[in-house]
Amino acid sequence: MNYLFYLVPAAAVIALVFAWIFFSQMMKESEGTVTMKEIAQYVREGAMAYLRQQYKVVIIVFAVLAVLFAVLAYGFGVQNPWVPFAFLTGGFFSGLAGYVGMRTATYASARTANATMRSLNSGLKIAFRSGAVMGLTVVGLGLLDISIWWIVLHAFVQEATAAQSLVVITTTMLTFGMGASTQALFARVGGGIYTKAADVGADIVGKVEQDIPEDDPRNPATIADNVGDNVGDVAGMGADLYESYCGSILATMALGASAFFSEGEAIQMKAILAPMVIAAIGVVLSIIGIFVVRTKEGASLKDLLGSLSRGTNLSAILIAVLTFGVFYVLGFDGTHGLPQWWQLSLSVVSGLLAGVIIGKITEYYTSHSYKPTQKLAESAQTGPATVIINGVGLGMISTAVPVVTIAVAILLAYGCATGFVFSTSTLSLGLYGISIAAVGMLSTLGITLATDAYGPIADNAGGNAQMSELDPSVREKTDILDSLGNTTAATGKGFAIGSAALTALALLASYIEEIKIGFQHIGKTVLEVGGRTVDTMSASITDIVEYYDITLMNPMVLVGIFIGSMMAFLFCGLTMNAVGRAAQKMVVEVRRQFREIAGILEGKQRPDYTSCVRISTKAAQHEMIFPSLLAIVVPMLVGIILGPAGVIGLLAGGLGAGFVLAVFLANSGGAWDNAKKFVEEGNFGGKNSASHHATVVGDTVGDPFKDTSGPSLNILIKLMSMVSIVMAGLTVMLH
Amino acid sequence: MNYLFYLVPAAAVIALVFAWIFFSQMMKESEGTVTMKEIAQYVREGAMAYLRQQYKVVIIVFAVLAVLFAVLAYGFGVQNPWVPFAFLTGGFFSGLAGYVGMRTATYASARTANATMRSLNSGLKIAFRSGAVMGLTVVGLGLLDISIWWIVLHAFVQEATAAQSLVVITTTMLTFGMGASTQALFARVGGGIYTKAADVGADIVGKVEQDIPEDDPRNPATIADNVGDNVGDVAGMGADLYESYCGSILATMALGASAFFSEGEAIQMKAILAPMVIAAIGVVLSIIGIFVVRTKEGASLKDLLGSLSRGTNLSAILIAVLTFGVFYVLGFDGTHGLPQWWQLSLSVVSGLLAGVIIGKITEYYTSHSYKPTQKLAESAQTGPATVIINGVGLGMISTAVPVVTIAVAILLAYGCATGFVFSTSTLSLGLYGISIAAVGMLSTLGITLATDAYGPIADNAGGNAQMSELDPSVREKTDILDSLGNTTAATGKGFAIGSAALTALALLASYIEEIKIGFQHIGKTVLEVGGRTVDTMSASITDIVEYYDITLMNPMVLVGIFIGSMMAFLFCGLTMNAVGRAAQKMVVEVRRQFREIAGILEGKQRPDYTSCVRISTKAAQHEMIFPSLLAIVVPMLVGIILGPAGVIGLLAGGLGAGFVLAVFLANSGGAWDNAKKFVEEGNFGGKNSASHHATVVGDTVGDPFKDTSGPSLNILIKLMSMVSIVMAGLTVMLH
Repeated sequence: MNYLFYLVPAAAVIALVFAWIFFSQMMKESEGTVTMKEIAQYVREGAMAYLRQQYKVVIIVFAVLAVLFAVLAYGFGVQNPWVPFAFLTGGFFSGLAGYVGMRTATYASARTANATMRSLNSGLKIAFRSGAVMGLTVVGLGLLDISIWWIVLHAFVQEATAAQSLVVITTTMLTFGMGASTQALFARVGGGIYTKAADVGADIVGKVEQDIPEDDPRNPATIADNVGDNVGDVAGMGADLYESYCGSILATMALGASAFFSEGEAIQMKAILAPMVIAAIGVVLSIIGIFVVRTKEGASLKDLLGSLSRGTNLSAILIAVLTFGVFYVLGFDGTHGLPQWWQLSLSVVSGLLAGVIIGKITEYYTSHSYKPTQKLAESAQTGPATVIINGVGLGMISTAVPVVTIAVAILLAYGCATGFVFSTSTLSLGLYGISIAAVGMLSTLGITLATDAYGPIADNAGGNAQMSELDPSVREKTDILDSLGNTTAATGKGFAIGSAALTALALLASYIEEIKIGFQHIGKTVLEVGGRTVDTMSASITDIVEYYDITLMNPMVLVGIFIGSMMAFLFCGLTMNAVGRAAQKMVVEVRRQFREIAGILEGKQRPDYTSCVRISTKAAQHEMIFPSLLAIVVPMLVGIILGPAGVIGLLAGGLGAGFVLAVFLANSGGAWDNAKKFVEEGNFGGKNSASHHATVVGDTVGDPFKDTSGPSLNILIKLMSMVSIVMAGLTVMLH
Repeated sequence: MNYLFYLVPAAAVIALVFAWIFFSQMMKESEGTVTMKEIAQYVREGAMAYLRQQYKVVIIVFAVLAVLFAVLAYGFGVQNPWVPFAFLTGGFFSGLAGYVGMRTATYASARTANATMRSLNSGLKIAFRSGAVMGLTVVGLGLLDISIWWIVLHAFVQEATAAQSLVVITTTMLTFGMGASTQALFARVGGGIYTKAADVGADIVGKVEQDIPEDDPRNPATIADNVGDNVGDVAGMGADLYESYCGSILATMALGASAFFSEGEAIQMKAILAPMVIAAIGVVLSIIGIFVVRTKEGASLKDLLGSLSRGTNLSAILIAVLTFGVFYVLGFDGTHGLPQWWQLSLSVVSGLLAGVIIGKITEYYTSHSYKPTQKLAESAQTGPATVIINGVGLGMISTAVPVVTIAVAILLAYGCATGFVFSTSTLSLGLYGISIAAVGMLSTLGITLATDAYGPIADNAGGNAQMSELDPSVREKTDILDSLGNTTAATGKGFAIGSAALTALALLASYIEEIKIGFQHIGKTVLEVGGRTVDTMSASITDIVEYYDITLMNPMVLVGIFIGSMMAFLFCGLTMNAVGRAAQKMVVEVRRQFREIAGILEGKQRPDYTSCVRISTKAAQHEMIFPSLLAIVVPMLVGIILGPAGVIGLLAGGLGAGFVLAVFLANSGGAWDNAKKFVEEGNFGGKNSASHHATVVGDTVGDPFKDTSGPSLNILIKLMSMVSIVMAGLTVMLH
């Protein structure tokens, strides 16, 4: 094993240590007044109670799937014996990352509110460092899991040749990605339903019907809403990005092992180590970036924004530069089928640039500093219908630039890796280039996630301030912090979306690789391909593609594309309706309380917060099951019925439609949210005008778009790939 | 030429003669009172004025494209010299079909209203027979154009062998399909923007703000709204279905010519004649079906519905039966590579069954006789936001069954044709089976379109009755006619959607065929494929697929899939925003009139109808250009930049995402419309309650979903294929 590997566990430990330091620092701060503590306690308990419920359901699903994989491995022999265990650890660490992040956030919100009373800067520091706890926990746990499995499998897996062992090790490790994806999907869907049921319900009765502000303590759904921010936006996001982070690294490792299979172990190892080392360096750069985010007392808003951007930009630029060094040190010198060190580095740069562009364009379409969202707000003057029509239109149009950007990035990442030779002979190397670009984009996740996660913390701090009836200036400041975060988080989201598309492409290739392993399991050592006889283990991706006729004229492939496209919509529809149904229940309950409990609106009587918490908890727990299981069962069925050609069609169709749908939903939702804020700032009639009510309808519709269905799609796409990969052995046995 | 061919021009003439008879019969009826005549005249003039404007724009586009094709044909020699002319006639006949249908509809509406005063049955007869004028005009003109080009090209095209001539003739004829698709897209997009701008604007101010009923003469946008029904729902639909009808026949002919290329002219001819003959027989069956729709005076509602269904069902069942006869007579006997006569007939039956299932499921999700729409209406009690969220969810979920149905139909149509052998050797035959299934679904378009087109006529009759202030019972009766039509039209729509998906698949294969012709044009007579040397003209689809590596791992293909998926969304977003923008202008104008012109609301003063007509006309004319051109330019650019692999990816991605998106938009829109009607029938508070206003918001949002963006998608998918086919020569020259 190359000594560079030890950078990986080392980075994992460093990340976790710094996460612990930031956590301890935050815990030393005061939570503020008695009311503030009390409210924070409410929210914390609600969030923990929900997470326990969610994990109960998830544990059952994991148990069933682990048994299934064990049967496939030990009963039918179509799978590696390590699979069930790898699957379980992936799920465990992903859940742990979400849990730690959420626990931190629930401790941090009152402290942030309290510190904001002192100064904006103090608030920023606590919120941002708490976000960094989550960022560093995600990358730390991710690299830890990768290190452990790498060491274990390296010690135990003994195939015919060392090169073959590396292929088996890396593809086995992919199955822990499936565990992470499964956990992430449940977390995103369950958390997303929870938070949006509460949010939509609270807004409809509170803002539209009663004209009371957001997070007003008189609103019975307000605690549920704040709990929701934690379980959805924090825990859900943590599990989600854990999955993305590990998925990109694991897919690249697997592609590296197979792309250089014929060159032997030493060369393979370089390609396998590259993504791990880049990720390890990214951890260090993230920590440096986090420390750069510090401002002087009395700093202006612009200073704060500059400070945040400086942190993320610095990390991104440094990783682009240091990637050249990594490939140089690893010895990518243009021999043994390896490209030159600068070639793959340029692939990474293409990916990073694509992420920045997608982030910027997202900001353009969703921020109310720009025309599209301002025009959307303007259309509120003609009522909610035109707000919805124009918002849907805006979101759909906004997909154009991200898709073209990703398309160009794919071709550049491939082209840079292969010297712009696009042919079947460069396929493996080109796909490796695409995959490593995704790793580059996510390598500084430690800090980009911090800028993302600190938003909900600031948001919750605002909620705490409002409910504790602190001076309105505190709420104003936390709102500034929140919107600051939205701007800087755009880049992070651009990286997350872009890398998801690239990783999903890499997973398509990994699926083909896994089919080869499947042939090994069923004892098929040679294949007849186009009249030639090919050894299964050294078959190229193109050979497998030809063997199963994975061309676009094969009806199985076309049927798969139809079903894949449909899956994206069906999944969104189910989660959307789940939010709709739960929100209706919430509205009915909130209306009931206002009607039946005298004195709520005058602030003389406390509303019954727990009944609302219960509605969200129950809805999330029930409604997350069907769509999530669908994402697991459909790829299995397609594999069994239509075979590998159908599966690849399913994944490609799901990726194409799912990616575009995700961008559409996210941007429509974001634009509606900010159009509402734009009106609230006094435009087109301002707060409580007819225009405002119209934009609140838009914002409410956008809630499940941008926080439930949309973000789940990225996971759906990858989970379907992961399931297919894990089930490849069975598929091969049947076809 | 086989004597059976003469059935085709004969059927064309019969269709046109009956269309003329029905038209003359309708014209003999009285248009009613002076006011009724006056209003009908207003609507007719507005519609004609708009259509003239639309044709002006379209003529410019056609002229530019025809010159481009002429340059490609005569300048670069990468195209057949007949292409520019075929392209122009397709556009001309498609436009003519829409024009005739719309002219008929504008004459029929007042007459229908007048007849309905006598009895429901008289109204049904006039409206339905007028719809039949459009149905028969579409199929008559379609078969006429096909007959003429077949005779002309047969006389002039002389390739090396007779078999080769047939391939060239049929692929050349496909280019008239591109003309039809281009015209159809402009008609659908322009008409769709026109009608929905007026409808949305009229509803927002009239129904929500002023609480006056639909089509109230006091509403300044009401004439524009009624004009819109004619230019969008009638002229747009006519051009649309002309395109579908011809597209399915032409694609099947082209596939037939190539699938049996190696068997020689006599066998090819059987495969080419089959779709034409089935279509010709379908014309006769449609006319029989139209005559079956006749009821006794005093017939109950159930009788009327039964009578309508009897007509369409009879035609569908008879075509299924007679198809067996057609293939038997043509001599499909299992020799010379031909399947048995009953095999392809079973493919047609699979398609017809799929159409029926899609129709039924559409009805289930969008009719307020069933749970989904009733639940949607119920959610109006918690305001417009939950109506929108649940409606979007409903539409997305409703895509599942249609997609699975189409998937099964594809596999069955392929499987029946090839004896369930799925391999590269059966590919051409299987695709022919898929394509002929689409022909079967559209063969009875004469009657299914009649049941579709009579809805808007009844709707307009209701508008006329309302504006002429006839007894409210007349409006009630026309509403019954309209909703009757919605039920029977569901099957027709199922056939239209299903056949579009199947035809688009067939066009993928036609594109590959056209690539072979492209090789001929640039003088490339042999190809190197996988080490073999293949003669270009006798190359199989699989050879071309291998030559260009049209597999799902090729990055060009994957990039194409991304762009194709995005195109569906971008196109919808642009048309959606166009409606939003135009509707805003309409709202502002209607509000202005209510405010500035005294006495409108009291009915003492006529509103200024023409200013609203002008707003819709101008908006449609301007806004249709960019999205429509995009549909033409993007496939050209993808071909030029990414080559054939990218194009196939583009088309497959566009088909997958576009089909699902189209079903989603249509069903969300339909469910919102009927949820509103359900509330208007007195549920959840009834008319003018808060629930009603919430459902009106849903209905208004649904307007561009179901009548602008959604229906345009089917055309978009096929137009992109047609453009790619026509540009294949240039693409091959560059790649």
